[in-house]
Amino acid sequence: MSDSIVISIDAMGGDHGPAVAVPGAALAAERIGPGRVRFLLFGDEAQIRAELERHPGAKAVCEVRGCDKVIAADEKPAQALRRGKGSSLWNAVEAVKERQAAAAVSGGNTGALMAISKLQLRMTGGLDRPAIVASWPTMRGVTAVLDVGANIESDAAQLLEFAIMGEAFHCAVHGSKRPTVGLLNVGSEDQKGHEEVREANRILRESGLNIDYRGFVEGDDIAKGTVDVVVTDGFTGNVALKTAEGTARFVRQVLRDAFSSSWQAKLGAVIAGPALKRIRDRLDPSSVNGGPLLGLNGLVIKSHGSADAKGFANALKVAYDLAASGYAAQIDRNMKHLAAALPGSGPPEGPAPAPETDQ
Amino acid sequence: MSDSIVISIDAMGGDHGPAVAVPGAALAAERIGPGRVRFLLFGDEAQIRAELERHPGAKAVCEVRGCDKVIAADEKPAQALRRGKGSSLWNAVEAVKERQAAAAVSGGNTGALMAISKLQLRMTGGLDRPAIVASWPTMRGVTAVLDVGANIESDAAQLLEFAIMGEAFHCAVHGSKRPTVGLLNVGSEDQKGHEEVREANRILRESGLNIDYRGFVEGDDIAKGTVDVVVTDGFTGNVALKTAEGTARFVRQVLRDAFSSSWQAKLGAVIAGPALKRIRDRLDPSSVNGGPLLGLNGLVIKSHGSADAKGFANALKVAYDLAASGYAAQIDRNMKHLAAALPGSGPPEGPAPAPETDQ
Repeated sequence: MSDSIVISIDAMGGDHGPAVAVPGAALAAERIGPGRVRFLLFGDEAQIRAELERHPGAKAVCEVRGCDKVIAADEKPAQALRRGKGSSLWNAVEAVKERQAAAAVSGGNTGALMAISKLQLRMTGGLDRPAIVASWPTMRGVTAVLDVGANIESDAAQLLEFAIMGEAFHCAVHGSKRPTVGLLNVGSEDQKGHEEVREANRILRESGLNIDYRGFVEGDDIAKGTVDVVVTDGFTGNVALKTAEGTARFVRQVLRDAFSSSWQAKLGAVIAGPALKRIRDRLDPSSVNGGPLLGLNGLVIKSHGSADAKGFANALKVAYDLAASGYAAQIDRNMKHLAAALPGSGPPEGPAPAPETDQ
Repeated sequence: MSDSIVISIDAMGGDHGPAVAVPGAALAAERIGPGRVRFLLFGDEAQIRAELERHPGAKAVCEVRGCDKVIAADEKPAQALRRGKGSSLWNAVEAVKERQAAAAVSGGNTGALMAISKLQLRMTGGLDRPAIVASWPTMRGVTAVLDVGANIESDAAQLLEFAIMGEAFHCAVHGSKRPTVGLLNVGSEDQKGHEEVREANRILRESGLNIDYRGFVEGDDIAKGTVDVVVTDGFTGNVALKTAEGTARFVRQVLRDAFSSSWQAKLGAVIAGPALKRIRDRLDPSSVNGGPLLGLNGLVIKSHGSADAKGFANALKVAYDLAASGYAAQIDRNMKHLAAALPGSGPPEGPAPAPETDQ
């Protein structure tokens, strides 16, 4: 077990706490393979141990780190920063800072996760704020969409940072050499949209940043795979991601209804079985759960609060893949290289600015 | 033909002009039935007549109103207002003002359509700005989502107006007695989101407006049908709508791929044929084309610029249904009733304010 990768888990985060985190860990360990991964579970010791008894597959690879405090879903980030020390979320992130774990995974309060991660791990390469990136399956491959919820409002400079982070992420994780980048808007003409996107568009076009920028893209360009990286503010990105998930779920329902609507349909479904299963797998929202927080000196992955065990296992798999890929070192190199090209970028080692309190 | 409903069409609007508008009119006339509808086609007479020769079904129900000017897709609303008089878009809306047509349909420049419609038809019931509403198929029926693109930014007062308009629309068009209303956000807790949505949430909760307001909803609540009316700003709504359309298109592609991947899959698809066709129909983006501009003294329907003939026919069908339903009178009654409850609502007959120029 000495060369296995260690992942810390905020077992109290999310709607279901240890009841999802523990079976999620069991599933992930099974998928990743024996001896390759271990988990540190932070949270209520009694609850976690009770779940571990039910899931021997998890028990073999998990270590419990008891802590009493939990950050509530509706706690404000500023409050979470003041009062959160010693909580399951705080300690899971701290394990990354102290190099006990290669990555932390939490399904808890997004604003608190961002603020605490930023305080403990600091930003890399002079960047200002973290962004959560979603890897979106498209007709042409995988498109990285960011920010999908770490920030509520983003000015032009932040959108620019998202472009830089997203580009580095796509290189590191999806193996592209020179990803194309687009800015999400309501139309493709330069004068469309609000001031922030128009200003970011102008800078991306005119500045000497070494990014393959393709201009504005629209909502339907995401699934088309028009570009490799779609940049947007956290409000719009979060709504777009959840809308797409809702649409995919709706479609699965339509499929189920249609294929049970008549005996012919049922027969057809039986005969086309493997094809239908492939469709269900490609449309399974839990298969894309797990959004890394980009821009930090360390790996932190946000899982959906409502994820089930399968979804949580997927977030753990994302964490494992990132940790195993040497992604952190590569993204750090890219960031430093690219941040140097940014006008007015601060020194990489500056003090962490005060976290936002507006979400 | 004397009691047929007349619809004016901006035949030059959209990416394809008369090449889509004319076959669209033919399809719509066929679907609506003989003697029930006539179209006034505004635009380049030679181009339109050439298309009419190819589509005898349209020729029988269309009247050509030649005009030379066309408003470009990238023209700013202020410029369109100054220079647009006599254009196909302008004249199509004017036909509604002069009661030659019961509704106007355009696939042209959204900002110009909004500004020109507002100038000519004025707002109803003291409302400030129009909103485009999308009728979104959900697991529980149809949810009205607005604004999906008439405005770029919306303050709390405008979001409130959208709630009022959307509620009236859902009553009038989808026949509900007391629609439930939600505000689109990135979470359900009261402190989530930016200032505009939090303020609108507070007013909707605390004001005495007679609306069945259910609080914040998230992107995946749209397709779930959690509420009947989803209120959002035009930027977010536009991105959400197009993202859902893109997702639906992606899924159709996944279906096609899967059902042609093996001989079993092909056989299954043949046997399940009618069920598969039903799925395709429910996921056809053109089947939901046609977004009414709410809040005006008159019916104006926006069609997607990229719609094909089938999609354009659907926008014409929406226009026909609205005109035939007496919706205009009902929404006007609802608006006046509800606007009276709004703090600081102006008189219904005030002069039209200067149109926005920021899109």
